[in-house]
Amino acid sequence: MRWKPVAGYVAMLSAGVAALALVHSIGNTLQAPAPAVGAALFGPGSGSASSGAGAASLPSALPHVLLALAVIIVAARAVGALFARVQQPPVIGEMIAGILLGPSLLGRFAPGVSAFILPASIAPLLGIIAQVGVVLFMFLVGLELDTDTLRKRTQASVAVSHASITVPFVLGGLLALYLYPVLSSRDVPFFSFALFIAVSMSVTAFPVLARILSDRHLQKTPLGVIALTCAAVDDVTAWCLLALVVGVAKSTPQDAVQTLLLAVGFVGLMLGVVGPRIVVWLQRRPGSLSQDAMAIVLLGLLLSSLATEAIGIHALFGAFLFGAVIPHDSAFAHEVGDKLTDLVLVLFLPAFFAFTGMRTQIGLVSGLPHWGIVALIVLVATVGKFGGSFVAARLTGLHTRDAAALGVLMNTRGLMELVVLNVGLDLRVVSPTLFTMLVLMALVTTFMTTPLLHVLRGRESFALSGSRAQPQR
Amino acid sequence: MRWKPVAGYVAMLSAGVAALALVHSIGNTLQAPAPAVGAALFGPGSGSASSGAGAASLPSALPHVLLALAVIIVAARAVGALFARVQQPPVIGEMIAGILLGPSLLGRFAPGVSAFILPASIAPLLGIIAQVGVVLFMFLVGLELDTDTLRKRTQASVAVSHASITVPFVLGGLLALYLYPVLSSRDVPFFSFALFIAVSMSVTAFPVLARILSDRHLQKTPLGVIALTCAAVDDVTAWCLLALVVGVAKSTPQDAVQTLLLAVGFVGLMLGVVGPRIVVWLQRRPGSLSQDAMAIVLLGLLLSSLATEAIGIHALFGAFLFGAVIPHDSAFAHEVGDKLTDLVLVLFLPAFFAFTGMRTQIGLVSGLPHWGIVALIVLVATVGKFGGSFVAARLTGLHTRDAAALGVLMNTRGLMELVVLNVGLDLRVVSPTLFTMLVLMALVTTFMTTPLLHVLRGRESFALSGSRAQPQR
Repeated sequence: MRWKPVAGYVAMLSAGVAALALVHSIGNTLQAPAPAVGAALFGPGSGSASSGAGAASLPSALPHVLLALAVIIVAARAVGALFARVQQPPVIGEMIAGILLGPSLLGRFAPGVSAFILPASIAPLLGIIAQVGVVLFMFLVGLELDTDTLRKRTQASVAVSHASITVPFVLGGLLALYLYPVLSSRDVPFFSFALFIAVSMSVTAFPVLARILSDRHLQKTPLGVIALTCAAVDDVTAWCLLALVVGVAKSTPQDAVQTLLLAVGFVGLMLGVVGPRIVVWLQRRPGSLSQDAMAIVLLGLLLSSLATEAIGIHALFGAFLFGAVIPHDSAFAHEVGDKLTDLVLVLFLPAFFAFTGMRTQIGLVSGLPHWGIVALIVLVATVGKFGGSFVAARLTGLHTRDAAALGVLMNTRGLMELVVLNVGLDLRVVSPTLFTMLVLMALVTTFMTTPLLHVLRGRESFALSGSRAQPQR
Repeated sequence: MRWKPVAGYVAMLSAGVAALALVHSIGNTLQAPAPAVGAALFGPGSGSASSGAGAASLPSALPHVLLALAVIIVAARAVGALFARVQQPPVIGEMIAGILLGPSLLGRFAPGVSAFILPASIAPLLGIIAQVGVVLFMFLVGLELDTDTLRKRTQASVAVSHASITVPFVLGGLLALYLYPVLSSRDVPFFSFALFIAVSMSVTAFPVLARILSDRHLQKTPLGVIALTCAAVDDVTAWCLLALVVGVAKSTPQDAVQTLLLAVGFVGLMLGVVGPRIVVWLQRRPGSLSQDAMAIVLLGLLLSSLATEAIGIHALFGAFLFGAVIPHDSAFAHEVGDKLTDLVLVLFLPAFFAFTGMRTQIGLVSGLPHWGIVALIVLVATVGKFGGSFVAARLTGLHTRDAAALGVLMNTRGLMELVVLNVGLDLRVVSPTLFTMLVLMALVTTFMTTPLLHVLRGRESFALSGSRAQPQR
């Protein structure tokens, strides 16, 4: 039993990649449009603005940043509360608040207000706050990851989790065949492009899912346990695949192999050496969280992020991994979570949503053909995630209703998708137009979860606890 | 009794300002050197680099920022622990760690390492993290401010607090007469310059002082209570005076009156309306700190900072004031403090020290004349603070030893001085050279406190609790 799931997991990954290789051989014959000038919105890489008026020429950035943060917090809380009232998770409202503050709404209809609140010159500053915030957030996601759940998987959850990754992954690869000639550019290799589209279809937002389930008191039901397990597996897998995308996009094929080996070595080091050390250290340390312990946690988090960045995969992966090797049910994990969670959820994540919103330009999606592509992306994403999970769940014996509910849950992409998409935009693997389309897909698939669950399971287990209790996203 | 201390306080402030007006009339005849090209290190205003390669042109800023933060945390903890071992408050070590990472040491002897760890291009990004951090820190200082202590002052503490501000303030004004022709420039009005030097002499670091006293278990002794009360009064006064400096430096005389009136109005609003509302709100709110409450606190903090910035005094003043109007002994204040303190002390303050260190160039202080000026500044600062406090304490009947110990304690400037100095550099009221000299003065006067106390009070009450417990600075 110990090696069977591992073998199955590896087989699943291999099958997915093999399918993509097939897609690749077709894709190589495709011709993408010539690269657009100034296509990537904030330049290559994280937190840098293409605007010439960077932070360097700002007379005084601090008041602007404070104002932006104040507006961001107000917008996030307000739209979040609005969404809680219509029984949606507030985090969807917060994501939408970020979009509304960007060029899609505020910048379009009140450019003066937008230039005052979120001038282009503070984009790099807001960007670094958002990115440090997402690093902290990914650490918290890792910290909350229940590694025991991953070990105690049932046959159903193994099948569903494999299917819920492989099917959307392969469908995403096929979708890339259509999207590449239309929306990519010649300086993006097809393989990176296809891999990225495939990964972006395969994401399930573990944190949002956990929140939806606990709002409906479903987290202890068999359905809830399967959904959470599968989401955790999907999350870890999506991150591994994203690391692969980053490695491939940044490097030549030889480098990619080296990156892969280093990444595997680093994961092994973290799970095999650092994790056990942390367990030993936790047993010896005094009761309450000291500042020294906090310094060690932050340092470990930074070093792990830097290591993955140096390897050539993203800093976020290291942050997530470092969180994952700290035993999630230890008092230490709870204390660290307590200290960081509120600030991250109230201040940093809304800043990340606003940063994402500044990069999302719905104006770029224009005309029927474009909106047709958005619909196609949503369709493929939903068919892949929902369909894959539903069929696998039915085959392992779940009832149709439960299987459908599971499929709906797995289709939640939430903010994890936004994190993945920002990485893709930073790498210039996707254009701002495609980025916007995929952001819309993330919002639509996340948004549809609650109403569909409502239809499938009725009102009986429907009890949103309001915006007060919000320990996880 | 209710109006007497207020009248005394106003009389003291008026006397100080009157003395400075006299200094001003002399100073107006002085001629300062022509402005140096590129004198202010990071441009006018907060967090902007004079380097052309700002954040805008960085391919990927995030790894650099993560690396810088990791190095900063390690350096701060290491030098801090070293200082704790020689029975100095760790915070002095952390301040020095920041200086060592800057151009004074690392940049001078290992420019390659320095350019890798702290490249000039990330200065604006590090700057915004540092400044947001100091805003949070000033809020925490305000939150810990015991306003009851301010009300329950004894005759001795009233006399000492008045003297410990007025004397260094006037001496600072006189010192400005000497410094202005030597180290200022013609584009800085003498009055702004003199006011700033006077304020920088008058700062007492309440947080560091509290820490030194609690390390030595002196905080409940009569001496400790007087010292803490005076430091709190000095802190509030220094901030009011700094607000005045900022107002004057930024505006014409007519504007200065307007700024002053608005500032007084705002303080009145916060103390008279917002404070009581918060007290009422705290009585009604549920037990534990919700995310909504956290959002309200952060929002209040940001809005208060923005209001003071809009009035024309510094954002830090608003942050401090908002913290001060929250009852410091409420469960709510403790919870908010718990959530923020560790992250601020472990991550943000060291970043601020490193940012200060990047702007401190000991290389600019060259030759005997310059070091003579540094010695003079330290002398005037010490004579003003120590002398003023000592004489006042003796006159109100304290023993010589206690009066001397009180004088030594009041001479602690610590990181509050660094905050004040950074504001002055941002305003271009002081040149980078004078900034560096004043940073050295801050370090020397803070550093001498513990050994001098040791000499004056012997070892009996000497019990540093190590680097573990460090609730306050």
